Amino acid sequence: MFNIFSLKGGISNVQGFCCDGVNVGMKSSQDEDVGFIRSEALCDISVRFTTNRFQASPIIHFKKYPKDFKTNFLLINSKNANAMTGEKGVEDIEEIFNRLSNYISVENPIMSSTGVIGYRLDIEKITSSFEKFDFNAKNSDRLARAIMTTDSFKKELSFRVELDSGDSFNIAGVCKGAGMINPAMATMLCFVTTDAKIPKSDMEEFLSEATEKSFNRISVDGDTSTNDTVMLLSNGLSNSYNREAFREALNRMLFEFAMMILKDGEGANKLIAFEVKGAKDSLEAERVSRALSNSLLVKTALFGEDPNWGRIASTIGATGVECSEESLKIYYDNLLIYSDTQRELDRDREERAYKIMKRDSFKIICDLGVGSGEFTSYGCDLSYEYVKINAEYRT
Amino acid sequence: MFNIFSLKGGISNVQGFCCDGVNVGMKSSQDEDVGFIRSEALCDISVRFTTNRFQASPIIHFKKYPKDFKTNFLLINSKNANAMTGEKGVEDIEEIFNRLSNYISVENPIMSSTGVIGYRLDIEKITSSFEKFDFNAKNSDRLARAIMTTDSFKKELSFRVELDSGDSFNIAGVCKGAGMINPAMATMLCFVTTDAKIPKSDMEEFLSEATEKSFNRISVDGDTSTNDTVMLLSNGLSNSYNREAFREALNRMLFEFAMMILKDGEGANKLIAFEVKGAKDSLEAERVSRALSNSLLVKTALFGEDPNWGRIASTIGATGVECSEESLKIYYDNLLIYSDTQRELDRDREERAYKIMKRDSFKIICDLGVGSGEFTSYGCDLSYEYVKINAEYRT
Repeated sequence: MFNIFSLKGGISNVQGFCCDGVNVGMKSSQDEDVGFIRSEALCDISVRFTTNRFQASPIIHFKKYPKDFKTNFLLINSKNANAMTGEKGVEDIEEIFNRLSNYISVENPIMSSTGVIGYRLDIEKITSSFEKFDFNAKNSDRLARAIMTTDSFKKELSFRVELDSGDSFNIAGVCKGAGMINPAMATMLCFVTTDAKIPKSDMEEFLSEATEKSFNRISVDGDTSTNDTVMLLSNGLSNSYNREAFREALNRMLFEFAMMILKDGEGANKLIAFEVKGAKDSLEAERVSRALSNSLLVKTALFGEDPNWGRIASTIGATGVECSEESLKIYYDNLLIYSDTQRELDRDREERAYKIMKRDSFKIICDLGVGSGEFTSYGCDLSYEYVKINAEYRT
Repeated sequence: MFNIFSLKGGISNVQGFCCDGVNVGMKSSQDEDVGFIRSEALCDISVRFTTNRFQASPIIHFKKYPKDFKTNFLLINSKNANAMTGEKGVEDIEEIFNRLSNYISVENPIMSSTGVIGYRLDIEKITSSFEKFDFNAKNSDRLARAIMTTDSFKKELSFRVELDSGDSFNIAGVCKGAGMINPAMATMLCFVTTDAKIPKSDMEEFLSEATEKSFNRISVDGDTSTNDTVMLLSNGLSNSYNREAFREALNRMLFEFAMMILKDGEGANKLIAFEVKGAKDSLEAERVSRALSNSLLVKTALFGEDPNWGRIASTIGATGVECSEESLKIYYDNLLIYSDTQRELDRDREERAYKIMKRDSFKIICDLGVGSGEFTSYGCDLSYEYVKINAEYRT
């Protein structure tokens, strides 16, 4: 057995990891815009990159290393995604790391970027960070700020896992994202570090599972960026490990990060779980759940706190899955809002529905009534603020 | 050869067709909310209904008639979609037509509805229209107003086709829609009438083709309503017909209606053609074109008049079609905005791009550079007003 404790702070809590963030003048404010994660010992790496066909230069650069390479240094910048910049974009990263070698000796350094697409990095500005960094710092707060774009709050988490044997290890991460996934700027980035002595095969298995159950189940605007990255770095320095404990801690961490992104969804006010059950199979449940969390009409109705179930039913119908007017049931939390025998909302149920919709967070449960397929995804409402943020970006 | 002339007015111009619209108190204003189309002679019918799994009661009622039935009467109401109302919804239509028989003798009457989902029709209000209608009127203007919901202008068109032989026929229609397609209210409805002596098989062929090239190529919000209907009624009273002339007139009419819907897109200010070429095949071209016209990020960038091509490129990449950073070219009208050798926007091109984006209407041309597949779809920007209309609807 094991216990998972939530600690204050972030990556600084993990043995052997240093981090920092500084401002080099890319953000117009004095906010941090470049940061790093460094490990005293070489790290195994497991990573999930965007499925976008146009992968950004940092991803192309990463893939040039041999399979199963190890690293001890990760550089991260905001404001510029270094995407659609061609071979020059990769050469720029190589030049940046050439210059880094004048400051500190690192092995197989990697980079990650977020921001506007289509502009080359300002090498002078980026490398000016090397003068300013404290490479032995444990400033996870400044790192977390350095990777923010439209995020309205920094996102870091730290767990300490204590095993019954008395051994323990740490897992901590930093994340950014406020649109899911907002190509021109609000890419989702997540870096998790651990001192657990975890085998590489477990890293791969658990990162896939945890990503699938978290970031792949949220939608702010249904877009997939050129830079999306979820990375797990382990240096093994704690010398302890437990499979189930690590798995649970990682699942919990990525799910919490995903909910943070939704809560910070551009202009969003509400976090909604779209729980679909009773579908023919899990694929049909997934199709319905994702259609609901992506529907503009559902999202604007949530913003307007309108208990009209018609938009939900219509969106389900538009997916073409197996379901009938007679078999369908819709609930807001525990309140039955539509069934074959209860179609029009009476005043009592309408008022109870209004109250639920005023909450910051609630469930929309759709029971298709034809099988046992289930799937839950998470979404948010669509407000004026979303349009404002995305119309005015860059200018 | 033939000539197609555009006439003022609408369905009233077609031989043998009467129409009218009245207010029965469903719209809070004094605006018309129920209308009819009546033909002196029985009409052949060709129709395309929504692919939504939950088809509204008027559609279920229509499908109860035998194949190839003819009609001379169509009743249309706004404010209530009569959708998700079950068997009762169909019985309500039957009761309405029972009462109609006290006023006028009709054959195989059909109904069409648009508005909120999930409420039964108010039979008393609907049938009170029968007292108010002039069944011999030619009031296409009032009919066009009666079917409006969030539309900000009425949509009717009338063409007169003159053949070299001296013969002529008319084709005229009425349409509504301001979201494409907005399940809870802004369903797309289109009714076209003609006095051409057109064979039923041509009606089917041409209505499919014209719908495919028009309504199936526009997107306001990517939703598919429970009530969408495109219908062609022909009474043959002109006794004249020409295959190519009719085909061209119908294609032109449905395309003009589709552009009217986009221009009236809820809160939209711009009409954009997303012209994709150079794709591996036409299916991949279609996938890209539709992804662009549905992307929230592209739509908000259009509203913000931001010439950032990064969102367009990223949306193309997210579709996973065959394309590379090197092969891709993006144009705004004739202005090359991205190519392998011209990535960052210089000030001159950026200013020219701004000017194009300030127009009410322009093309975004994406040449994927890998084949000869082509597809064009049409979309609009996403403004604060869209959120407002859809958040506040019903209340």
